[in-house]
Amino acid sequence: MHIEDQVGLAALIRGQRQAALGTLADGAPFVSIVLYALQEDSHGGPPVFLVHTSRLALHTRNMEADPRVSLLIAQPDVGAGDPQALPRVTIQAVAQPIPRESADYERSKECYVARLPDAAFLFSFSDFVFFRLVPTEARYIGGFAKAFTLTAEQIREALQ
Amino acid sequence: MHIEDQVGLAALIRGQRQAALGTLADGAPFVSIVLYALQEDSHGGPPVFLVHTSRLALHTRNMEADPRVSLLIAQPDVGAGDPQALPRVTIQAVAQPIPRESADYERSKECYVARLPDAAFLFSFSDFVFFRLVPTEARYIGGFAKAFTLTAEQIREALQ
Repeated sequence: MHIEDQVGLAALIRGQRQAALGTLADGAPFVSIVLYALQEDSHGGPPVFLVHTSRLALHTRNMEADPRVSLLIAQPDVGAGDPQALPRVTIQAVAQPIPRESADYERSKECYVARLPDAAFLFSFSDFVFFRLVPTEARYIGGFAKAFTLTAEQIREALQ
Repeated sequence: MHIEDQVGLAALIRGQRQAALGTLADGAPFVSIVLYALQEDSHGGPPVFLVHTSRLALHTRNMEADPRVSLLIAQPDVGAGDPQALPRVTIQAVAQPIPRESADYERSKECYVARLPDAAFLFSFSDFVFFRLVPTEARYIGGFAKAFTLTAEQIREALQ
C-alpha cells in the first residue's frame, strides 16, 4: 500500500463517526448501525474501535454471545456520482467488553466522549455495555482498482 | 406500525441505492457495500432486493457458501445533527442466485438496470453473479423510540 492509500484509509476512519456493525445472531449475520470512536493508544498495540451499545439492542447481546464482528466504515453515498468509487473499509475484529471497574474504562470513556460528546449521557444508563473492537485484519477499497487486504499491523501503520 | 412509519420505511428503501451487506465468512460476519434495486413484483410474494456482485469479491463467495444475509439500508450520516435519529432498517434475508438461463433473469435484470443504469455494463462480465435477497424479517428504526420488528408480510405491506 502506498503512502497516499494509507493517508486515504486514515482519513476515512477518522472522518466518520458511524459504521455498519456485523455481528452473529444465532449464527446468521446481522448488520446494524453503531457510533464509534478510534482509540489510537490502546495497549501499545493496534488502534481499537470503541462502541457503546445497549443490551436492549440485539447487536449487544450478539457480541456478548460471540465476539466476532465486522465493522464497515464507508464514505456516505449522497446519491451523486458513482457510488462504487467511494472509499470504504471492512475491519474484521474481536469485541472485548470493557468492564466499569477495569483500569482502561475511564481512559477509553474519555476517548469516546471526546469524539462523541452528545453520547456522553449514555454512560449513566445501566443497560449500556462498553466494548473495544480489536482489529485482526481489514479490506480497504480506496476507489477503482485500489483494493488492499491489511494485517492488524498494517492498519496500525496507516493510522500513525 | 402506523401508516407514517410504513411511509418512512418505504421512502428509506426506495431512496437509497447502496446498502451494507452482511454475509458469513467461515462462520464470522463480514460487512461490505453493495448496490441494490428493489424488485416489488417478484413471485407475487414479498418484494426482493436485487444485487449483482463479482466472484472476485468475498461477499459473492460467502453468499454462494451460505445464503443467510443481512442488508442494512440507512439514511447517510453527513456529520450534522444526531446520527442516532437517522432512519435505518436491517433486513434479514436469504440470497438466491438468479441463473442466466432462468425465466426471471431478464425481468430482474431490467428492474436492476432501470434503477442502476450505470451498472448495466457489468452484466457482460462473466465473473458477476446476480442474486435476489428474499426478506424473512426486518428491524426498522425510524427515529427515537420508533423501533419495529417486521415480518416479511409487514415489509410487503409497507412497500405497497
